[in-house]
Amino acid sequence: MSTDEPAVPDGGLVRVRLDLAYDGAAFSGWATQPGLRTVQGVLEETLRVVLRLPASPSLTVAGRTDAGVHARGQVAHVDLPLADLPLGPDPEAALAAVLPRLRGALPRDIRVRAATLAPLGFDARFSALWRRYSYRVVDDPAGPDPLRRGETLAWGRTLDLGALNAASAALVGERDFAAFCRRREGASTIRTLRAFTWARLAGEPDGAVVAHLTADAFCHSMVRALVGCLLPVGDGRRPVGWPAQVQFAAVRDSAVHVAPPYPLVLEEVGYPGPEDLAEQAVRTRRRRSTPER
Amino acid sequence: MSTDEPAVPDGGLVRVRLDLAYDGAAFSGWATQPGLRTVQGVLEETLRVVLRLPASPSLTVAGRTDAGVHARGQVAHVDLPLADLPLGPDPEAALAAVLPRLRGALPRDIRVRAATLAPLGFDARFSALWRRYSYRVVDDPAGPDPLRRGETLAWGRTLDLGALNAASAALVGERDFAAFCRRREGASTIRTLRAFTWARLAGEPDGAVVAHLTADAFCHSMVRALVGCLLPVGDGRRPVGWPAQVQFAAVRDSAVHVAPPYPLVLEEVGYPGPEDLAEQAVRTRRRRSTPER
Repeated sequence: MSTDEPAVPDGGLVRVRLDLAYDGAAFSGWATQPGLRTVQGVLEETLRVVLRLPASPSLTVAGRTDAGVHARGQVAHVDLPLADLPLGPDPEAALAAVLPRLRGALPRDIRVRAATLAPLGFDARFSALWRRYSYRVVDDPAGPDPLRRGETLAWGRTLDLGALNAASAALVGERDFAAFCRRREGASTIRTLRAFTWARLAGEPDGAVVAHLTADAFCHSMVRALVGCLLPVGDGRRPVGWPAQVQFAAVRDSAVHVAPPYPLVLEEVGYPGPEDLAEQAVRTRRRRSTPER
Repeated sequence: MSTDEPAVPDGGLVRVRLDLAYDGAAFSGWATQPGLRTVQGVLEETLRVVLRLPASPSLTVAGRTDAGVHARGQVAHVDLPLADLPLGPDPEAALAAVLPRLRGALPRDIRVRAATLAPLGFDARFSALWRRYSYRVVDDPAGPDPLRRGETLAWGRTLDLGALNAASAALVGERDFAAFCRRREGASTIRTLRAFTWARLAGEPDGAVVAHLTADAFCHSMVRALVGCLLPVGDGRRPVGWPAQVQFAAVRDSAVHVAPPYPLVLEEVGYPGPEDLAEQAVRTRRRRSTPER
């Protein structure tokens, strides 16, 4: 195992994996920004208060979600001085004691689903193999179930699942997604889209159509640009072959409207087994010249 | 067919059935109250504006939901002068023209799922055979999925589905539910509880437990009192036989805590076939000395 990062943090710090869910509506996205309420900012400040630390600890996240985007399966890591706290010498017991306090102190729009000691070599961002997002759309003229309206796009035309799935399948694979990425100097726009499927949910009162997209990583606004490109195919205004043409051109196309953020949910992040965590981090760092968002 | 109410309303009015969904969070319940935002008040006023009527039409509803209670399958009827409007002589075509305008004019927390010409003898309240409610509870210490927190009770102790279902099954049948009803002078508290079941939802990230209750009708606060009685059985603090004892005593028991309204959803209202609608309305009126809520 070779890595450019210590598997165990220095200075008595213990690496903790946080599995997180949040309602993005009242956050200016994940990443800390001065003067704005962000998921990272609220979590770091709450950890500081609960653990009585002299300064906020720093979180590293698998998927930096934009303003308004939600998460059910976000993963972050943080290095905490658990052994130095008056919680006993066992980091596992200390973490178990901290978790209820952390949950109690957080606002109701952020939940810590689990907090666990990270395996050796774990990095929430660089060890991740894939991210899966969902996007919820209702094409019934009645509109979304009012209880789900904060996470659902109302689409005025009927969507054809066959057309959506055929056009989406044509984008799967390792490709240059420059047409769907906000360009950043020196950043690669090559990604491996592992799956892109649409399904109409049985048993949902509003008959929602949900897209699921899985990739090694997504560049900024990529999921929303892909969804925005596919919806006019689904309602018949664009041919099934159009999204593949847009992708192949590899430049932003002004005909692609980036879909709004509030129906987007980071559902799950995939990691390799413990023995491959550090190796995967090295591979990820090597492949990308600059960090993905 | 004998009924004390005309099957077709007088004066050129046409009876319309409205299938409704709403997020109850920002409403002071269904029923109009002066100075308060209610579902009925918003719907009646919006109908008046959209149809340019001289006065608000009056809605009759299947289930008068309390403040904070939601609906996915609420049913109401309203008698409208569709033939007198400048929408053409065909009531069906007029209604089809009105529906998109009504949907466009309503706030996003009320949706009209369908608006149809009611069959002869239809009365949203008195023709109904049964109402089904759901109640969503999360017993995971992590708490509810933040996106569902507006419709989910966070319960601090682990719930045993076997105990919940055994205790609930013992309440099913035609019984006096006085122990679970707010007493009203002259009102019967005898109801037929057709089903009362609990299930842990597979595939939900927060592992929610959802209760479903179906009865011919529920008296005021009955669903929330039943749920409030069952939860301490589910977490082991009360024996499985306790709810049946409470029911049998037929008086309000101060040990039963009425559960909060926001996890409660009116899911569905059942009606007989068209040939039995008026007959059912007569039966309902005869059985109850005063109206149920």
